[in-house]
Amino acid sequence: MFSNEEKASIYKVIEKRRDIRSFLSTPIQEEKIERILKAAHHAPSVGFMQPWNFILITSDDVKERLAWAADKERRALAIHYEGEKETKFLGLKIEGLKEAPLTICVTCDPTRGGAHVLGRNSIPETDMLSTACAIQNMWLAACAEGLALGWVSFYKKNDVRDILDIPPHIDPIALLSIGYTDDYPEKPILEQENWRKRESLEHLIFKNKWNEQR
Amino acid sequence: MFSNEEKASIYKVIEKRRDIRSFLSTPIQEEKIERILKAAHHAPSVGFMQPWNFILITSDDVKERLAWAADKERRALAIHYEGEKETKFLGLKIEGLKEAPLTICVTCDPTRGGAHVLGRNSIPETDMLSTACAIQNMWLAACAEGLALGWVSFYKKNDVRDILDIPPHIDPIALLSIGYTDDYPEKPILEQENWRKRESLEHLIFKNKWNEQR
Repeated sequence: MFSNEEKASIYKVIEKRRDIRSFLSTPIQEEKIERILKAAHHAPSVGFMQPWNFILITSDDVKERLAWAADKERRALAIHYEGEKETKFLGLKIEGLKEAPLTICVTCDPTRGGAHVLGRNSIPETDMLSTACAIQNMWLAACAEGLALGWVSFYKKNDVRDILDIPPHIDPIALLSIGYTDDYPEKPILEQENWRKRESLEHLIFKNKWNEQR
Repeated sequence: MFSNEEKASIYKVIEKRRDIRSFLSTPIQEEKIERILKAAHHAPSVGFMQPWNFILITSDDVKERLAWAADKERRALAIHYEGEKETKFLGLKIEGLKEAPLTICVTCDPTRGGAHVLGRNSIPETDMLSTACAIQNMWLAACAEGLALGWVSFYKKNDVRDILDIPPHIDPIALLSIGYTDDYPEKPILEQENWRKRESLEHLIFKNKWNEQR
């Protein structure tokens, strides 16, 4: 059972967690890294397959190469957008990849647990969803530890596989920059910059069928 | 900043959260449902697209039809497995779908935010990953509220679309049974039943590249 204080802490971390793009070079205590990885490992997974791996990247050389792959993708995306504004945000993330003392590549192994994992047999992408739950646990834990985390999701997966020697069947789901920051916003950056508003929750809720308001 | 007590609460809920299969008929207080939905809505999302919707199902008739769809899938899966054991677990989940006072269908709308959502443009499945983060937030919040939650992930998506009138482009990511339970296990049920062990975390962690142990 959870006391009111415990509940309040849990809601607090859920609301305070932000996607961060700028980091200090301050090193991260080892025990904090262990705790956030343990939090990730306690995520739910379909058929208890635990499909995740965590590649901890501290080498400046490897970080540079990941930043190169993300920057290549940013430049390709710039062609699809009309202006500078759209890819400015992505540029900040690339700087973050270089600044943060630690980058974690979280991967998903669809073969873990054999050919017919319970549940995954019906909906194959449930392995990726499990990995996302692990990332969310890690993100909340990082926030609780006073650490900032930024999720980079623009790269060609094969570039990241090449750089990190990841086998072809393994899915590099996310690059997470982690470190301390002196720029921790109250609101999501894209909301703050009037890029997009938070949707009204009430409009997203239906009753017994699609489009039926409560 | 988070105090040690606050941090401990956050790690506690991450470790206590379980996937539950049996529910009491005890109704859930409205304010708890609102809080867990708000927790879901505070998940991160790629390009702040907030692709989720929540269909709250309390109608016994609709629950029966969802249980029918899951049972059809369970019977189909039974043909792929050799024995009874494999689909016994799935059978429990179907009972849970009928027992729980509330089922929430969480969906993902890949069109929300337009054609070129930042980040999703590079890796399209990031919308689903965002939705999984929302589910994880909801699950932790439910656990904090003393509620049990079970994720059902075996059904044909078109069956669920038919039953809930969901448009073809919307992805029904999960059926979540929610309620109180008198059977809340310490360990994951599949671990408890020796179905599968928890992996050694240390073996899942690499340093700077794939397969490089720390």
